[in-house]
Amino acid sequence: MTDQTRLSRQLAFSLELDKLKTILRQTLLVDSSRQENDAEHSWHVAMMAVLLAEHAPPGADPLRASRMLLFHDVVEIDAGDTFIHDDKGNSDKAQREQAAADRLYGMLPPDQAAELRALWQEYEDRATPTAKFADALDRLQPIMNNFATKGGTWHQHGVTADKVLKLVERIRAGAPALGDHAEFLVREAVRLGYLAPAPQAP
Amino acid sequence: MTDQTRLSRQLAFSLELDKLKTILRQTLLVDSSRQENDAEHSWHVAMMAVLLAEHAPPGADPLRASRMLLFHDVVEIDAGDTFIHDDKGNSDKAQREQAAADRLYGMLPPDQAAELRALWQEYEDRATPTAKFADALDRLQPIMNNFATKGGTWHQHGVTADKVLKLVERIRAGAPALGDHAEFLVREAVRLGYLAPAPQAP
Repeated sequence: MTDQTRLSRQLAFSLELDKLKTILRQTLLVDSSRQENDAEHSWHVAMMAVLLAEHAPPGADPLRASRMLLFHDVVEIDAGDTFIHDDKGNSDKAQREQAAADRLYGMLPPDQAAELRALWQEYEDRATPTAKFADALDRLQPIMNNFATKGGTWHQHGVTADKVLKLVERIRAGAPALGDHAEFLVREAVRLGYLAPAPQAP
Repeated sequence: MTDQTRLSRQLAFSLELDKLKTILRQTLLVDSSRQENDAEHSWHVAMMAVLLAEHAPPGADPLRASRMLLFHDVVEIDAGDTFIHDDKGNSDKAQREQAAADRLYGMLPPDQAAELRALWQEYEDRATPTAKFADALDRLQPIMNNFATKGGTWHQHGVTADKVLKLVERIRAGAPALGDHAEFLVREAVRLGYLAPAPQAP
């Protein structure tokens, strides 16, 4: 592959990334003006990886987590965003995202495609301390925005505290101090009426 | 400062960052649907620093440039976006941005505030190879989007080729191969009628 071809492929992929700005998530902006999109969400959590680096678990590389978070939603250009509490949408999510990764990373020179796809797969597998830290931030940011918007889209989707507390355990697994903070936010959200409590057993 | 206070300050700053999603730039998205905001622009150029790392000049650290680009527009939360071809707006831009940096980075624990402010100042000074590479990407992305939208907001603001070619020289200074590509885009844009040629001397 000539240098010119490498550059052309990199620039075509760079331009393709623009589409992530049009993929909407369920989370609202803090000013409640509109839904957040994947590109600005990715920026937000990549920033948080730098800002909250000291809360990463032993063995995690926060700067690698930041890079991982920049790329973590790129497959949604083709696969769309799947709401975390949408059980049906999540059933074929992995398959849709692998096909998206084939097409999108396939635009790049092969060595670069392999490297970035491996970074994304590491995030998806959530097996390394770095990926767990990245996942914790990806789960924390929507909880912070939902709290700041007095419940945001929790009400609209009928989300209850037990569901959010399951995500809190994922945050704790990737960054214990941030898990404690997320749990505090959830309990406060229930107390303030921003989030419905867990349904009572009949 | 207790650990809890450090975390509280870091989280307050993280939430404040959400406001960058509401600061609009002159550039349009590639699908022309709307103006781009600072958060998604910052994500885009931080991604390009990773993707185009091999085109950075000797002595540049592309991953540091990526981090620099994540943060490069944070001051615009208070100072707003100033269009690069707005001479009046640019006359007091530096002063407005220093005041914004005082307030915003002042939200963080002092050691972190100093580190991140230094990273931003390095970007502003454009003296290091890393900052020049970051600046090149910050200049290239809008040219790519303007070309992809058949001129985008160039027409609307009466921007002519000579002004854009001055920015191309900044791109070339930070990444020669990307400068060549940008110059190609500008010349093609003039040929296709996306960009007005330089005004003729009387």
